[in-house]
Amino acid sequence: MGLLTIFRQGELPLRRIEFLSDGIFAVVATVLVFQLKVPELYDPGSIAELGERLLEVAPKFGSWLLTEMIVFAFWMRQHQVLAQAGHADHGLVWLNLLFLTGQAFIPFPAALWGEYPLNPLATGFYGSVMALNILLLIGLHAHIVSHHLLRPEYAHQNMQCVARCLVLVMAFVLAAASGWFSPVSAYLLYGLTALYMLYPQLYSHDPAAAPDAPREAA
Amino acid sequence: MGLLTIFRQGELPLRRIEFLSDGIFAVVATVLVFQLKVPELYDPGSIAELGERLLEVAPKFGSWLLTEMIVFAFWMRQHQVLAQAGHADHGLVWLNLLFLTGQAFIPFPAALWGEYPLNPLATGFYGSVMALNILLLIGLHAHIVSHHLLRPEYAHQNMQCVARCLVLVMAFVLAAASGWFSPVSAYLLYGLTALYMLYPQLYSHDPAAAPDAPREAA
Amino acid sequence: MGLLTIFRQGELPLRRIEFLSDGIFAVVATVLVFQLKVPELYDPGSIAELGERLLEVAPKFGSWLLTEMIVFAFWMRQHQVLAQAGHADHGLVWLNLLFLTGQAFIPFPAALWGEYPLNPLATGFYGSVMALNILLLIGLHAHIVSHHLLRPEYAHQNMQCVARCLVLVMAFVLAAASGWFSPVSAYLLYGLTALYMLYPQLYSHDPAAAPDAPREAA
Amino acid sequence: MGLLTIFRQGELPLRRIEFLSDGIFAVVATVLVFQLKVPELYDPGSIAELGERLLEVAPKFGSWLLTEMIVFAFWMRQHQVLAQAGHADHGLVWLNLLFLTGQAFIPFPAALWGEYPLNPLATGFYGSVMALNILLLIGLHAHIVSHHLLRPEYAHQNMQCVARCLVLVMAFVLAAASGWFSPVSAYLLYGLTALYMLYPQLYSHDPAAAPDAPREAA
Repeated sequence: MGLLTIFRQGELPLRRIEFLSDGIFAVVATVLVFQLKVPELYDPGSIAELGERLLEVAPKFGSWLLTEMIVFAFWMRQHQVLAQAGHADHGLVWLNLLFLTGQAFIPFPAALWGEYPLNPLATGFYGSVMALNILLLIGLHAHIVSHHLLRPEYAHQNMQCVARCLVLVMAFVLAAASGWFSPVSAYLLYGLTALYMLYPQLYSHDPAAAPDAPREAA
Repeated sequence: MGLLTIFRQGELPLRRIEFLSDGIFAVVATVLVFQLKVPELYDPGSIAELGERLLEVAPKFGSWLLTEMIVFAFWMRQHQVLAQAGHADHGLVWLNLLFLTGQAFIPFPAALWGEYPLNPLATGFYGSVMALNILLLIGLHAHIVSHHLLRPEYAHQNMQCVARCLVLVMAFVLAAASGWFSPVSAYLLYGLTALYMLYPQLYSHDPAAAPDAPREAA
Repeated sequence: MGLLTIFRQGELPLRRIEFLSDGIFAVVATVLVFQLKVPELYDPGSIAELGERLLEVAPKFGSWLLTEMIVFAFWMRQHQVLAQAGHADHGLVWLNLLFLTGQAFIPFPAALWGEYPLNPLATGFYGSVMALNILLLIGLHAHIVSHHLLRPEYAHQNMQCVARCLVLVMAFVLAAASGWFSPVSAYLLYGLTALYMLYPQLYSHDPAAAPDAPREAA
Repeated sequence: MGLLTIFRQGELPLRRIEFLSDGIFAVVATVLVFQLKVPELYDPGSIAELGERLLEVAPKFGSWLLTEMIVFAFWMRQHQVLAQAGHADHGLVWLNLLFLTGQAFIPFPAALWGEYPLNPLATGFYGSVMALNILLLIGLHAHIVSHHLLRPEYAHQNMQCVARCLVLVMAFVLAAASGWFSPVSAYLLYGLTALYMLYPQLYSHDPAAAPDAPREAA
């Protein structure tokens, strides 16, 4: 029995692919907080000292929040992409696992950037990993479109829509590069890119499509 | 294809929003235990030394238990809120992700408070994060009510019911403030607030409502 | 809308209670491995030194394996208990959350015992936490039986069956106590108790019961 | 009520076994990244120093990526195996839990190998754990075939197909042994084995089988 027979039949259960994906997104989104370390205090009861320490790590809070936004945006975009597939083939499964590998890597560049926010290499590494993740997601999307895995309602979808995401890759690369000149500009550009990723109309050339099946009783 | 078509149709699958949420709650509830560190002993076999060390960290056990209760109460309340929605729109998805961001942050203030239980700033920070989370949940609830996303059975729901939760915000803020005068009073007030959050009738103006669909075979 | 209306209707969706539970079991079962630390070597390439270090921590591997077995046994028993419930009430939800709190605590006593395997207090603490978890599970089961939440097929179930689990509590307490005299005997008794927990017939007064609904396509 | 009545009926819900499994795979796949530590820098802003440090830990990135691939391959293979079962019996549940225990252990040998990539014992330990995991999966598969738990569409399945996986055991053992002579050859052999595990046709003697049930609305 091959993947063919598990993931591919006419109308396959993509459900288990979603389980694994949602599990990984949930763990990544939660373990990011571990980069925020409890500061060590000389005087455990001192309000002033704790206040100072927390202010010192304020940039870490910022990068944590930004990474959360980006991870959640990836969650949303991956679901949008998978929801268009009526069935899966080997390529879809591999490309999705590759994308999840990229997602599972995110805590490392996030911690690196949070630790060295003024180091252009840390800043650039962060953006490059994000750009790579977008590329992996585009690859998944392109595969679904080009291999005719689309559900009938989305059959008119084409590569143009896929290509639109390349702007996100460019935005991350640009932001990464800008870190060489100014860490603050990199931060702002990452923030704008994250907001754009979260912007609902990014994919919505097709807002009135696809009446879906009735909701399960829940 | 926009979020509109994934999360919003007449009767939409909110299921995947629940998957991500339950995953995040599960991870948060479990990683909280990492703030309880195994103490280092000079004499590994000494009962007395280990006993002393465990007693020393007893306040940490208390704050761990309290945070568990609060996280589980959030889990329950969020489900109550989401269960009233018959469909989702962009706002619901964003507000829910914002709320989950707040939940994923909880391990940090919990570890900070567990480490410095007598520091008013740590105590207050903990309560402020909890108050903020309640506000995010109220925002989610208010959005569902005001944007007519309610399932028909809950259509008579109104903002009055939403507003009732503001008392929880005030309770957390009050507890946080009281930490400036007495750490013990803050602890007690947090405990009372947690119990109130867990109290079933908080939302139950409507106990006889909504016969739900039959349970799946399980 | 109260819990009543979410978790209790005639035939309610206990599904979301299962999601949270399975998520917590999965995280607990996985993070236990963090107590196994990579040893530090003077000579990174030395086979002999690494071999010695690994042998030194062999007891930790033993306690890790034992805890895995116990956590998985809890997973199985909790599902057996929940599967008998046809619907939930407040009590079931609270008692289940209390039980999950107990499960989420397990990594701490497991790490403590793994670190100080010869310390009677560490050994006893481990067993006491396990006994407490069994008690919490018995409480959940007793609530389901006594509050008539059983599915019709299990309606003949009675408290006798619930009481049978008290032997597990006694076994854990006995093993915990034996650690005061001999760490090895405690280890063996924990192992035997875990095997008994995993033994399928523990609950099976009723092996031919309940034809369940057809399996979902998966 | 025994496991018999929960997991075994004619057409049982294997769903909850999948929940736990997917949860564990998701957590394992994500926590592997923790072995990648943020390097400490003397000059936090130095591009050159950070670059050197990252290059130094490049082998860790390699072993992290390899382990991700192997874990995802296990996820896929386990699903292939479980998907063939029409119902479960005690043996299936135990063998699956044993397999999951093996999966939950993977972060330790992965971190050990990542830390000491040139130590033959660390290299060999990694491969041995992987070989053991394959054996556990083969045991699960063999149980399903030999105890007639197969769904009707797979009834013609036989032990020959099961045995084919023994080549993976041999490959891991060979790779582990080769580490005694050359760490690089071990690395390459692990990589080749991982690719073979991911290769779709490994099991696919039966590509046209089993039209599955219609996809749930998602």
